[in-house]
Amino acid sequence: MNDKIKEYSSLIEEKLYKYFEASLPEYKILFDSMEYSVKNGGKRVRPLLTLLFYNACGKDDVLKAMPMAEAVEYIHTYSLIHDDLPCMDNDDFRRGKPSNHKVYGEAIALLAGDGLLTSAFERISVWSLAGLYDAETAVKAIHELSVYAGARGMIGGQIIDIGNENNPNADFDNLKLMDSLKTGCLISVACALGCIAAGASQDLIDSAKTFGEKLGLAFQIKDDILDVTSTLEKLGKMTGSDKENNKSTYVTLLGIEKCEELVKQLTDEAMNALDVFPYNEAIKEYANYLADREY
Amino acid sequence: MNDKIKEYSSLIEEKLYKYFEASLPEYKILFDSMEYSVKNGGKRVRPLLTLLFYNACGKDDVLKAMPMAEAVEYIHTYSLIHDDLPCMDNDDFRRGKPSNHKVYGEAIALLAGDGLLTSAFERISVWSLAGLYDAETAVKAIHELSVYAGARGMIGGQIIDIGNENNPNADFDNLKLMDSLKTGCLISVACALGCIAAGASQDLIDSAKTFGEKLGLAFQIKDDILDVTSTLEKLGKMTGSDKENNKSTYVTLLGIEKCEELVKQLTDEAMNALDVFPYNEAIKEYANYLADREY
Repeated sequence: MNDKIKEYSSLIEEKLYKYFEASLPEYKILFDSMEYSVKNGGKRVRPLLTLLFYNACGKDDVLKAMPMAEAVEYIHTYSLIHDDLPCMDNDDFRRGKPSNHKVYGEAIALLAGDGLLTSAFERISVWSLAGLYDAETAVKAIHELSVYAGARGMIGGQIIDIGNENNPNADFDNLKLMDSLKTGCLISVACALGCIAAGASQDLIDSAKTFGEKLGLAFQIKDDILDVTSTLEKLGKMTGSDKENNKSTYVTLLGIEKCEELVKQLTDEAMNALDVFPYNEAIKEYANYLADREY
Repeated sequence: MNDKIKEYSSLIEEKLYKYFEASLPEYKILFDSMEYSVKNGGKRVRPLLTLLFYNACGKDDVLKAMPMAEAVEYIHTYSLIHDDLPCMDNDDFRRGKPSNHKVYGEAIALLAGDGLLTSAFERISVWSLAGLYDAETAVKAIHELSVYAGARGMIGGQIIDIGNENNPNADFDNLKLMDSLKTGCLISVACALGCIAAGASQDLIDSAKTFGEKLGLAFQIKDDILDVTSTLEKLGKMTGSDKENNKSTYVTLLGIEKCEELVKQLTDEAMNALDVFPYNEAIKEYANYLADREY
């Protein structure tokens, strides 16, 4: 793996928990709960994309993009906590560990999600007030994040997902819209925020979003493939759960072979969107790594 | 009632629903759900305070403060939707109408809350991008709102509230901390945002917060008094519910007479904080109205 990717990954792990340090004892359990889920992180794909796109715009001082990276990861984490709640997917495990509400109870898990969502906007704004980047940059980042993570973006996708539960008639377009909102939006905005932090042109920001959309969809189709082919041990969560719910998936709609082709095509399109970036070596390597993952 | 208060109230009702107009049919139910709870509004105390403080700073073009007012009301509404969920207070009614999850189900109610919370930051940022106020103003407002509505503010207060459930030993300080966070924070920041939108000095912003803190606490103590003395018809919600939960309240801790005194004292202190504002007539009248309410 590229040294830059290793370096950025360590930086992310180092910075991600600073927010949870100080708090009144009276509500410490809320911060424990938020930290629990942030610590039980995955591959940190989204914050890494933010830093890699910042770098791809020709900037090396990635700490300037860190608040944006943190914000995206907090939003991702809140969405997982709320997704796991009994009224949503009712998942007892997340990445092989008990989900937030199984450890802290539903009420605290709900509030931990709310807290992480709110903290995303606190992170971006406070570092602008501290002079790390100008107010215009912060407002642009906050606006993009609020739209892509909001009711017309990620949350809209979650609503469509609920509508698709037990609907074996959901078609490809429906599934694609759902995923492009539920998963693609946050990946796209993670890429865009790196460019915004770098003060990049609208062209670069748009290309970063295209990359995110294509990769996000490739990601989701790959997930469906892995959901069928992988085992509990490898993924750390129950497999085949979508099938049990009688849900349409890309695999049930298109078959594994066509899905594999589509993943390749989307990955190629994502790669092409990187050509406009002046320093795209690390981000290309990372995109290839993501496309090739088998677990 | 002062003409200004009437005028601002109408403006708020007119603007508050614009956000929910356009959306894809696939997730329309989410917008319906968000709108349902925003429409089932109360006295619009928080957005009114934002506009009245904007005006108290010597500004008349209150539409410039409207995005801040909307943001505060969306945050308030999301907190009520999440508060009513079965894993929290499990309230079937809110202001005499079925609570959000009784109409739309728990999953959509949860996501409607998330959507409203996110939209608060979208509202403030988008109107800065549109040129209504500068980026510095937006970032300052977003930061204050994220802190006061966040894990160290309103949500922290909700956590303390959960800890106090079935704890008859919660004392006055504990109750005061809980309320100053859970209720006071959002009222304080509603006041502060009006000053921030007006470009007021830090002195005025701080005074607005002091007003909000004092009034918020007076409000909460008054609520406890009304909870005991009022009836179902008047309040539109179950009364005596705190008592059923075996919760400490200001009334159980201090008695009604001492509570009435405290409300008067806090209201006086809140009023004193208004003296520094150049145009404080309308806000003083409104504060008096709030302090005198009997339902």
